[in-house]
Amino acid sequence: MALNELMGSTEDRPGLVEAGRSIEMESFRIIDAEMGEHPFPEDQWQVVRRVIHTTGDFDYARQIRFHPRAVASGVAALTRGASIFADTRMIAVGLSPWRLQWYGNEAVVPALHPESRIRAEEQGVTRSVAAFRGVSDQLNGAVVAIGNAPTALLEVLRLIREDGVRPALVIGVPVGFVQAAESKDQLQRMTDQPAIAVLGRKGGSSVAVAILHALLELAGNVNQ
Amino acid sequence: MALNELMGSTEDRPGLVEAGRSIEMESFRIIDAEMGEHPFPEDQWQVVRRVIHTTGDFDYARQIRFHPRAVASGVAALTRGASIFADTRMIAVGLSPWRLQWYGNEAVVPALHPESRIRAEEQGVTRSVAAFRGVSDQLNGAVVAIGNAPTALLEVLRLIREDGVRPALVIGVPVGFVQAAESKDQLQRMTDQPAIAVLGRKGGSSVAVAILHALLELAGNVNQ
Repeated sequence: MALNELMGSTEDRPGLVEAGRSIEMESFRIIDAEMGEHPFPEDQWQVVRRVIHTTGDFDYARQIRFHPRAVASGVAALTRGASIFADTRMIAVGLSPWRLQWYGNEAVVPALHPESRIRAEEQGVTRSVAAFRGVSDQLNGAVVAIGNAPTALLEVLRLIREDGVRPALVIGVPVGFVQAAESKDQLQRMTDQPAIAVLGRKGGSSVAVAILHALLELAGNVNQ
Repeated sequence: MALNELMGSTEDRPGLVEAGRSIEMESFRIIDAEMGEHPFPEDQWQVVRRVIHTTGDFDYARQIRFHPRAVASGVAALTRGASIFADTRMIAVGLSPWRLQWYGNEAVVPALHPESRIRAEEQGVTRSVAAFRGVSDQLNGAVVAIGNAPTALLEVLRLIREDGVRPALVIGVPVGFVQAAESKDQLQRMTDQPAIAVLGRKGGSSVAVAILHALLELAGNVNQ
């Protein structure tokens, strides 16, 4: 049970600790036991395990790809209070306010800015593309999380390649049958950009949220 | 690409029709082609296909279970303007306002009501349980969508069995490793309750949203 999805206020999590934590721990114990041996270092495994926990799907352990600096760079950015730029409202709403407040990370959905629609029409591109193009100067050192729109991920990759934009971490997990696999394959082949990608068709906003929660938990542990 | 997850206002969908619809149609064409023969009647297949589209995972075609009256009862309820009672904010936010306005369906997350917390403490149950118990008199004829909390689904099943509550449709797709499979198995064994369930561990808020969007599209087509 991914408690996180329910969270509506920063007070919620502590109130759920007793019942919820024990279910989460039991779930993690089951996942550890069924997974058995795996190739992931401990910090990456905490990410993979939370994705499996959120999806009920061990396939993610085979399809996820980490840039070698991905977890360290993502955790460092979150610890510095970096903003999270997401392509869907579901990601922003799914993130636990309780965890976000540890370091004051803000979740931003640029496609909801009214200017994104205007820019999209002016430039003849999708709103997702216009949205990330419009905030390109804010992406340096930020965490980018794409759960839905391959076009948004492709635009972020273009900004990195052509405009020298440097996010601390790109989480690329758009789901789907058109361009999703291609966009994620491009991401995982970028050797100088910390990234976490799920190859193939699977992914989605819940997967992006699970990865971010795992990184926030790792950041939280640094601080304890 | 599940366009639905991005939706922020009722204006959004028409603006995305040109680019988005063609991607959606192409995705559906790929899913139809790869799926080949299947046992679903046409209306159930529209639900299954949208779930596959949202998850990138054909496994759902093997794990989904429909009560014989599920689609008809759900579509009729939505067409009547029935409310949708969800266990997560992600479901409520993921639902496209554009589709909800066709029949004026309201998405309600009872766990966000402040009384849910108070009742949970008084009754010594989880907030999800207290939340659905607290709205039990509003569930008759409504659509219930559980994407996250097996305890919420188990409580809805208890309300149906013991208190004679009669939702028009129960969508039971909680994800996870503790109680999720058991709760969904109980749901699909109820012979007199229209229900859609995903057996096993998989599911989640995105799956619940996909099922609801498919039903809303079916309801929309009735009206055209």
